[in-house]
Amino acid sequence: MIKKLKNALGIDKVSTNETELFRHSHDESAHPGVLPDVVCFPESTEDVKKIIEIAKECNTAVTPFGVGSGLEGQSIPIKKGISVNLERMDQVIDFSPEDMTITVQPGMTRLQLNEKINKHGLHFPIDPGADATIGGMVATNASGTTAVRYGSMRDQLLDLEVVLADGRIIRTGTKAKKSSSGYNLTGLFAGSEGTLGIITEITLKLHGIPEHIIAARCTFETVEQCAEGAYTILASDIPVMRMELVDSSSIKQVNDYGDYAFPVEHSLFFEFAGAKSATEAQAELAKELMKDMGCSNWDVASSTKDRNEIWKARHEMAYAYRHQKGKHFYSTDTCVPISKLPELVHFARELLEESGLQGGILGHVGDGNFHTLSLFEADNEEDRKRSLDMNERLVLKAIEMGGTCTGEHGVGLGKMKFQKAEHGEAVAVMESVKNMFDPDNLLNPGKIFE
Amino acid sequence: MIKKLKNALGIDKVSTNETELFRHSHDESAHPGVLPDVVCFPESTEDVKKIIEIAKECNTAVTPFGVGSGLEGQSIPIKKGISVNLERMDQVIDFSPEDMTITVQPGMTRLQLNEKINKHGLHFPIDPGADATIGGMVATNASGTTAVRYGSMRDQLLDLEVVLADGRIIRTGTKAKKSSSGYNLTGLFAGSEGTLGIITEITLKLHGIPEHIIAARCTFETVEQCAEGAYTILASDIPVMRMELVDSSSIKQVNDYGDYAFPVEHSLFFEFAGAKSATEAQAELAKELMKDMGCSNWDVASSTKDRNEIWKARHEMAYAYRHQKGKHFYSTDTCVPISKLPELVHFARELLEESGLQGGILGHVGDGNFHTLSLFEADNEEDRKRSLDMNERLVLKAIEMGGTCTGEHGVGLGKMKFQKAEHGEAVAVMESVKNMFDPDNLLNPGKIFE
Repeated sequence: MIKKLKNALGIDKVSTNETELFRHSHDESAHPGVLPDVVCFPESTEDVKKIIEIAKECNTAVTPFGVGSGLEGQSIPIKKGISVNLERMDQVIDFSPEDMTITVQPGMTRLQLNEKINKHGLHFPIDPGADATIGGMVATNASGTTAVRYGSMRDQLLDLEVVLADGRIIRTGTKAKKSSSGYNLTGLFAGSEGTLGIITEITLKLHGIPEHIIAARCTFETVEQCAEGAYTILASDIPVMRMELVDSSSIKQVNDYGDYAFPVEHSLFFEFAGAKSATEAQAELAKELMKDMGCSNWDVASSTKDRNEIWKARHEMAYAYRHQKGKHFYSTDTCVPISKLPELVHFARELLEESGLQGGILGHVGDGNFHTLSLFEADNEEDRKRSLDMNERLVLKAIEMGGTCTGEHGVGLGKMKFQKAEHGEAVAVMESVKNMFDPDNLLNPGKIFE
Repeated sequence: MIKKLKNALGIDKVSTNETELFRHSHDESAHPGVLPDVVCFPESTEDVKKIIEIAKECNTAVTPFGVGSGLEGQSIPIKKGISVNLERMDQVIDFSPEDMTITVQPGMTRLQLNEKINKHGLHFPIDPGADATIGGMVATNASGTTAVRYGSMRDQLLDLEVVLADGRIIRTGTKAKKSSSGYNLTGLFAGSEGTLGIITEITLKLHGIPEHIIAARCTFETVEQCAEGAYTILASDIPVMRMELVDSSSIKQVNDYGDYAFPVEHSLFFEFAGAKSATEAQAELAKELMKDMGCSNWDVASSTKDRNEIWKARHEMAYAYRHQKGKHFYSTDTCVPISKLPELVHFARELLEESGLQGGILGHVGDGNFHTLSLFEADNEEDRKRSLDMNERLVLKAIEMGGTCTGEHGVGLGKMKFQKAEHGEAVAVMESVKNMFDPDNLLNPGKIFE
């Protein structure tokens, strides 16, 4: 197989170097790594087609890889075979500032994309935290702190080029902003984690960079009040750019970690963005609404420096948890109807305390999505198990509440076991779809379905 | 078959009355009607399941029917068989004002829905003009004048209950605002026009009723300037609620028809909505931007009466064209990248003049979607052909420009012939999906695919 790949692609696009194999064996999650047999670096859609055809010939698994920033093991080649690294496919295919659309290859990262378009007054607002590839973000239907305003990746897609398991190359959409033509294959491939085809081009909606941004922060006595505050903002149709919940225990941990003195209370973080006058009006209205609801410590800023200060606790926290030496972390990703959020956050906090693990809670409160991060020593199997148990109890509770096991990280390896509980009979339909697209089960096998 | 249906459902849910057969033979389009053999009025998901099982047993076509407001013949039972009228399934299953979500049966109409939720300060903003059923709107992925802000129906869906061709009942999503779990079946059923299953429950996102609404109108010398004006608004990230283009010839026709005196120039119509202060700021900024670009006749209003006056031309036009006695109309529905809009509108105007047909152009300029309405006598086959020829030339040009044959009306009968031109190889994939879900081709056969 490796010889065939080298013949078809050229030797510089095929590697069995141990460092490369290791780099492609894992992602940022604590899921155990598996080495691929070989790593390919396609430079074109045609290269991807060749790889898929050889994989079919050799009956070998094919697992796409972006930058490995995934959190559920989607890019771990658990059946070994070929890891397809798309980093060389990082070009702009077509950019139309006047249409606010761009077509890029999947290996371009989020920050690279923004660098290309910012000078035209445009930005791509989906922000999952990591500098993930656009392809990876589509494949997992990623979102992040701006989902309250812009939704998930699926909502930003106009068109995809995909190489199917049988080598056919299709386009799923057009460059028009909306369409009612044909079946929505675009949405189907988004979130399919490389199990239905390999995405080779992506056409995205872009957005105007807001003229003005205002950050604000306030605190409430209870998590329930934070959630109610968030609801009031949503119901008032204020188009917030970001709205995040950090519970008091987590604020305390950030203060300890970074030597800050943020008020140790349940906090809501806001970002308002748009035309200057409109944004100021929104921030002012939000302030009035929150004060009416009894908030404390309203803190507002519009300069970049002061804005960063206000959001520091939120940013530090994720970073602090994810980058402790020798430690692994697991992040839950449940998403529930907003009214259920206070109860589930409360439950998560109890589970965390019960587990004895270090950790914190970060909530995309406008979406009902939050993460419970827990830390454990890399070799402490008991703590790892504690962390996964906590996740399981939280997921089952979320599903019971009408929610989902994953708001934005995807299924990968970690959420497979909850598919039946969440989707019921529909899992069989999804399996039929998988079987239709990939009858030999070569595309990222062992993901999504058990 | 009719006996079986009566036995299974009860006689009051099955009709072969001629008036009923006729009512279910056509929609609002000029596509020729076909009488079904029988009309069923299910009152529950179980009823729908029974109908589908009997249809399978008798190898009979099943075509869902909402209120018949479709514009591409989706509900015409062209293979006869069973027309499934969902009007008795018009109940709220679950309403959660605090989550801003509602679960309804498919036969509830858009206005019925808004009546139920408005008193809670919420509204469902997707507005295709007609008082269509929510089920029909999902099935065609409808949108309308608010798509610039809220997208299409697909963007507003959280969950569907669907009865499949084999009688299985599945749920496609959850009540959480976002999810990365499993394949996106919700998006796949949206826009599938009853060809993959019959939708029996729909969970929708709701939105807060804006505190304040401002309408505005201005004119430009050229259609190109209107399109540039619209682009400037979008690029400034002003969250307009509606933004519509009406070309000067169409304004003139409205003046003649309704005895108005609107300035006979290419016009942009705006609606801004949100918190009062923010909305006023947005309208003011829009005014400055449009004035900078050389607009004339800026007219603005915030009282309901004055707002209606400003939008009258836009509303009258659609109505005027659709409700002329003894006349049929055809509406094109192309959608292209915004930068291509002026050229395509110009082309459409030329085609219309060349055809000699009475008609007008209405543009959802924020989306690149516009309708060229043409009128002809019901029995004038030559004019009907002229109208369809015009559509064909416009569609092919739109596809060439990277656009779509249908922005919001759906494929139905009228856009089938363009599927290959628009989707290429992907049509074969869509056909495989259809075949997987409905191997006997009983669900709304003869639609979408030729």
